[in-house]
Amino acid sequence: MREYVVHEVIRRTLITDADQEVVSGKTRLTYAQLYGRVLRLANSLKELGIGKGTVVGVLDVNTHRFFELHYALSMLGAVLHTINFRLPPEHLVYSMIHAGDEWIFVSDTFMKAAAPLTGKFPKWVIMSDDPDYPLPEVEQAYRYEELVAGGDEKELPEADQIHDSDIFSIFYTTGTTGKPKGIRYAHREILLGALQLFHHLALHSSGAHAGAEDVIMPLIPFFHIHAWGVAFFPAYTGAKLVLPGAADPATQVKLIKEEGVTWMNMVPTQLHMLLDQPGFSNVKVLTGGSPLTSGLAKRAAERGVKFSLIYGGSDQLGTSISVAPRGVDPNSEEALEWLRAGMKLLPMVEVSIRDEEGNEVPHDGKTIGSVWTRSPWLPEGYYKEPDLTRESYVDGWFRTGDLGFFYPNGMLYVAGRQGYAVKSGGEWIPTGMLEAVLSEHPMVELVAVIPMPNERWGQRPMAVIKPKGDVTEDDLRQFMLGKISEGKIAKFWIPDKFVFVEDIPLTSAGKLNKAELQKRYL
Amino acid sequence: MREYVVHEVIRRTLITDADQEVVSGKTRLTYAQLYGRVLRLANSLKELGIGKGTVVGVLDVNTHRFFELHYALSMLGAVLHTINFRLPPEHLVYSMIHAGDEWIFVSDTFMKAAAPLTGKFPKWVIMSDDPDYPLPEVEQAYRYEELVAGGDEKELPEADQIHDSDIFSIFYTTGTTGKPKGIRYAHREILLGALQLFHHLALHSSGAHAGAEDVIMPLIPFFHIHAWGVAFFPAYTGAKLVLPGAADPATQVKLIKEEGVTWMNMVPTQLHMLLDQPGFSNVKVLTGGSPLTSGLAKRAAERGVKFSLIYGGSDQLGTSISVAPRGVDPNSEEALEWLRAGMKLLPMVEVSIRDEEGNEVPHDGKTIGSVWTRSPWLPEGYYKEPDLTRESYVDGWFRTGDLGFFYPNGMLYVAGRQGYAVKSGGEWIPTGMLEAVLSEHPMVELVAVIPMPNERWGQRPMAVIKPKGDVTEDDLRQFMLGKISEGKIAKFWIPDKFVFVEDIPLTSAGKLNKAELQKRYL
Repeated sequence: MREYVVHEVIRRTLITDADQEVVSGKTRLTYAQLYGRVLRLANSLKELGIGKGTVVGVLDVNTHRFFELHYALSMLGAVLHTINFRLPPEHLVYSMIHAGDEWIFVSDTFMKAAAPLTGKFPKWVIMSDDPDYPLPEVEQAYRYEELVAGGDEKELPEADQIHDSDIFSIFYTTGTTGKPKGIRYAHREILLGALQLFHHLALHSSGAHAGAEDVIMPLIPFFHIHAWGVAFFPAYTGAKLVLPGAADPATQVKLIKEEGVTWMNMVPTQLHMLLDQPGFSNVKVLTGGSPLTSGLAKRAAERGVKFSLIYGGSDQLGTSISVAPRGVDPNSEEALEWLRAGMKLLPMVEVSIRDEEGNEVPHDGKTIGSVWTRSPWLPEGYYKEPDLTRESYVDGWFRTGDLGFFYPNGMLYVAGRQGYAVKSGGEWIPTGMLEAVLSEHPMVELVAVIPMPNERWGQRPMAVIKPKGDVTEDDLRQFMLGKISEGKIAKFWIPDKFVFVEDIPLTSAGKLNKAELQKRYL
Repeated sequence: MREYVVHEVIRRTLITDADQEVVSGKTRLTYAQLYGRVLRLANSLKELGIGKGTVVGVLDVNTHRFFELHYALSMLGAVLHTINFRLPPEHLVYSMIHAGDEWIFVSDTFMKAAAPLTGKFPKWVIMSDDPDYPLPEVEQAYRYEELVAGGDEKELPEADQIHDSDIFSIFYTTGTTGKPKGIRYAHREILLGALQLFHHLALHSSGAHAGAEDVIMPLIPFFHIHAWGVAFFPAYTGAKLVLPGAADPATQVKLIKEEGVTWMNMVPTQLHMLLDQPGFSNVKVLTGGSPLTSGLAKRAAERGVKFSLIYGGSDQLGTSISVAPRGVDPNSEEALEWLRAGMKLLPMVEVSIRDEEGNEVPHDGKTIGSVWTRSPWLPEGYYKEPDLTRESYVDGWFRTGDLGFFYPNGMLYVAGRQGYAVKSGGEWIPTGMLEAVLSEHPMVELVAVIPMPNERWGQRPMAVIKPKGDVTEDDLRQFMLGKISEGKIAKFWIPDKFVFVEDIPLTSAGKLNKAELQKRYL
């Protein structure tokens, strides 16, 4: 029996998709060529002493080299630390020390930023197209391409000794308070969990349907849960893969046209930027990380962009993805609203929405509670943080810390983080829905709603607005009264206070940074 | 963390697909109702002492009760023996004793045939719509519907203690020589392997594409690898399930129309019978078990039937399914030929085709060798048959005993069983291809090619023909000469002998029974 491990994903391409392409900057490789490079790299890394359990930190954008490292390190049984380069420098170094990075692989894109790391980490591999790219002055330093060129192209016997339950990778997420938290993924968990996103998308024809015939370009960085699984999916299904490196939105659109890209993933902010580009149209987009506003959804639909919203996270992996409900015409306006916000649980996932006593709330499309989830790929907890783990992983369930509700048809709506939601007079106000409604106003570019202490109600909502043009508090209040009469929001949801600002800070994952907003405005 | 076990497949339907239907004879159930029945049944069975490791034999056609038993027994950790009712009676009893069946569940359809078993097995459950159906005179006997009615509708705590690696089911396949062979499936293997068929079909748009929007009716019996996974797939993806029971082809067509069936599985013989029905059209069909002839493929295509061919078996699970190759218009005649015979390996499957020295043969579309396969869901071997297991399961690979070759584009062609293929002058003659070409003759209804000893060549092919009308050996020789000039066959493939018969025997799996033919004609 073969084990269910990462490097087994790519072996089939040698038979079924040997000529299929992986495109990355000026590099074009077939899967057969890429597999040869992976073998040669793995044999060279073995000579350097990298083997079972060695932790290897990688600092790169989405390139073929980062993609190759997934498979080479898997064959060796090494642990891939996908370094979260959006963490503040101090946290980034903390994560590398906490994970135990023994080697670091740094692309030329990051060499300047990584210079301060030379004093702390002695073993480096530099990834660059430039054969003369200078090596840092550290104990050991190699060029990636020289390791590839110098390695034997033969299968590694240890590749058949890696087990489903061995750790494949580790990732650090922004801590809501203080230090980043590490999550380790066993091969079994990351493969079951990451591939299930694509199984779900393949099993439904609406939204961001994905399959073997797609040409895939991930805009979600590999460090973030392996680009939500795109490090595995194209090889798994034999699809063409386009890696955008550090391309800006205009170049991304150029790549879409030139390479025939049909499927992408990105956060809503990136979707926003791409829709500002003239040539962006007719692709499928999986998006998530923050709510998708009606305005953005409509703009996307007008351009022929078919989208789905995903809910999940590094500590639970994928939980749900929006599709048109059964019986709803997938091309209707109604379907568009469901695709924007109503998510169907992935196969084999369960979600329980609970009140403060831990009882399940009714699936009535309005009763908000805490989102708990469980699945066969739930990680074991936060690495070396037993207290944090005990708080969040309870009786086989993961307490997400998010608020949400179920519609009667079983679709899940996620209303935002529990800590930043507003509890007014004992009732939750879903800030995500409120933000979505406010963002529909033509003069609102970005909006965040945060809780404000209130003597009478406990909390009341405050809206922080980045305007596009002239707009007043009164305009927005009038606008929201209209939304009440449309039945979209309740009257008591209308914020008590509106603050107009020049910019709204985002987190490393591209979400509204509500912790920072609370610091600034409360 | 939840384990990756069978009963977890159906729990999600309570949220996402509570109102979706399962139709079985006169019974219509929603998944919510069916889950309630499963819980009540499982609680009653627990009271009867059925628990972890109890082996339960089930003798039924495809009904909702057999479907429910999959989930109820999974919750209890019992082992489901899907009794192969197409085995000869002596072998059937052998399989039940060998598996260690403690309880047997028998539907009224089979009670007459099962009567001789009363002396051998003391604990019975009878499955019938008739509340007064007589119970057999054995030590303990119950009515299934009374157990369902009398059970508590509550979750079983032991359901959370079942592990991925626990045995879920056992199945006995026809032994090529002598006794049937038992294969046990752990939850992990049967779920990974069975669901992968559907992932593959969902990831490709050509052929028998399957997804959440399909209405599924399995004609492959549940006993045969859980209807090739259809015991799991509809609940997994939330699709409507139609269970045909013992329906004849005319009733099957009526069910297709009335219930809106869009996806089915069946052996080619069943496809043949359905195409003889006037109303059969516009469904997707997964077929396999024996070659799909060009004639049958064309008839199917003319009726709007989109098909794929699957290769696999109970001792390897699924290996490959035909799809249109990349770059080939899926609606073209070329695609039709690929779908009929050129199979793409499922994701994470590897196949190695080897010569007699164990070396891989080139993927040139003609060099035939022995088919070896490996995958993360390969079973551990034949139950209580260490010698047979050692012969077939070698270094993590399964020696299928089949012959095949790869086309240069990576598509697999399976040319038939090694034992019944013909080796002439050191060269394999692919009998499956030969049968497919001969079956294109308008006067040939069924054909089997078997090896005939020959002093000069070692073996030569002999064709056993069931004609449709007047046809002579000369006609067939002329027809084959035409096929040589078309490049479809080689001259030395033409059989030395043609025998015309009234009927060709089939095995319990609906394949040509070549063992019997060899006995009769050689």
